[in-house]
Amino acid sequence: MEVSARNLFKGTVKSLVVGLVNVEVILEIAPGVEVAAVITKASSEKLGLSLGKEAYAVIKASDVMLAVD
Amino acid sequence: MEVSARNLFKGTVKSLVVGLVNVEVILEIAPGVEVAAVITKASSEKLGLSLGKEAYAVIKASDVMLAVD
Amino acid sequence: MEVSARNLFKGTVKSLVVGLVNVEVILEIAPGVEVAAVITKASSEKLGLSLGKEAYAVIKASDVMLAVD
Amino acid sequence: MEVSARNLFKGTVKSLVVGLVNVEVILEIAPGVEVAAVITKASSEKLGLSLGKEAYAVIKASDVMLAVD
Amino acid sequence: MEVSARNLFKGTVKSLVVGLVNVEVILEIAPGVEVAAVITKASSEKLGLSLGKEAYAVIKASDVMLAVD
Amino acid sequence: MEVSARNLFKGTVKSLVVGLVNVEVILEIAPGVEVAAVITKASSEKLGLSLGKEAYAVIKASDVMLAVD
Repeated sequence: MEVSARNLFKGTVKSLVVGLVNVEVILEIAPGVEVAAVITKASSEKLGLSLGKEAYAVIKASDVMLAVD
Repeated sequence: MEVSARNLFKGTVKSLVVGLVNVEVILEIAPGVEVAAVITKASSEKLGLSLGKEAYAVIKASDVMLAVD
Repeated sequence: MEVSARNLFKGTVKSLVVGLVNVEVILEIAPGVEVAAVITKASSEKLGLSLGKEAYAVIKASDVMLAVD
Repeated sequence: MEVSARNLFKGTVKSLVVGLVNVEVILEIAPGVEVAAVITKASSEKLGLSLGKEAYAVIKASDVMLAVD
Repeated sequence: MEVSARNLFKGTVKSLVVGLVNVEVILEIAPGVEVAAVITKASSEKLGLSLGKEAYAVIKASDVMLAVD
Repeated sequence: MEVSARNLFKGTVKSLVVGLVNVEVILEIAPGVEVAAVITKASSEKLGLSLGKEAYAVIKASDVMLAVD
């Protein structure tokens, strides 16, 4: 399945913090570069996420803000 | 100002597509790695975004999905 | 690719309103039931969306609100 | 109150997973068709959500992605 | 209809920038305090938004970030 | 750092509900006017949020819906 979301980053699961409803997942997408995601626990289980597993971060362009110094 | 958004990527503006309300901005955050953002034209002008300018992509963790092959 | 987004609805493209940056796409997911999406024009072209094409609406659970009468 | 969100689906609460901050609610909007939402526990209590209650899923068009096979 | 979104601010439409797909609407919710929204042109027309009209800004708590100096 | 998000409201932390993954924070931005935010616990700790602390609510315009009576 090809998704309209413009931003797709491949990485490896580096940590999981599991709550009652949500899970926070940290992906390492390049050495020292991490992406934090919060998804439902049900989704995390459906995808079989665990430490070291390969996964993609998927981000819709309208959810990206910009900033300058 | 320090923002709660967990994901912050520094890059350079590589392209701008300007609409009547929104602007699509592509940041290059590493060689060959791009982030696409859609922000309002008013925001783009307020930040003074233009080709080659340094900027950050800012993404809230709850807006990041995950996927597996 | 399997995505963490909990909500996935298969449908047929019923209309497209094309702007300079974004496109509004209406999917019919059941007789008389429609889903409206706004994605970038670049994404719409990448997916090859056109009238009558089959596509899925993909929605993260944290983007769904609830309401009562 | 009439909301700008383009997507409104009427359904029945089929399950609730209650966390400390958030609640995951599954609405059945047609036989076998479900929508998953994550809202705050405070909102769920304000709306009086419980199993079998009628409710609407409300989704802003810019939060809908599209995908193709 | 009562919505789960936690943040609801009543105001008056102060400006509209109309695009092909989206409209940017500025609400004045208190003297000198404004909220900017981007919604679809179709929604703006459905709600009958025009200068001086009363309207509410509706914001889901999970879409609010925090920042400190 | 200057962020593209159009909506920035200064306030004082009035309550915190701490979960395993997320925290709900209520900011009072004017006498009797509150904004509810859900951010990750890690972000809340990074920003040092606590009762009475000054903070800003930051909201992207595309995450604001409108409604009329």
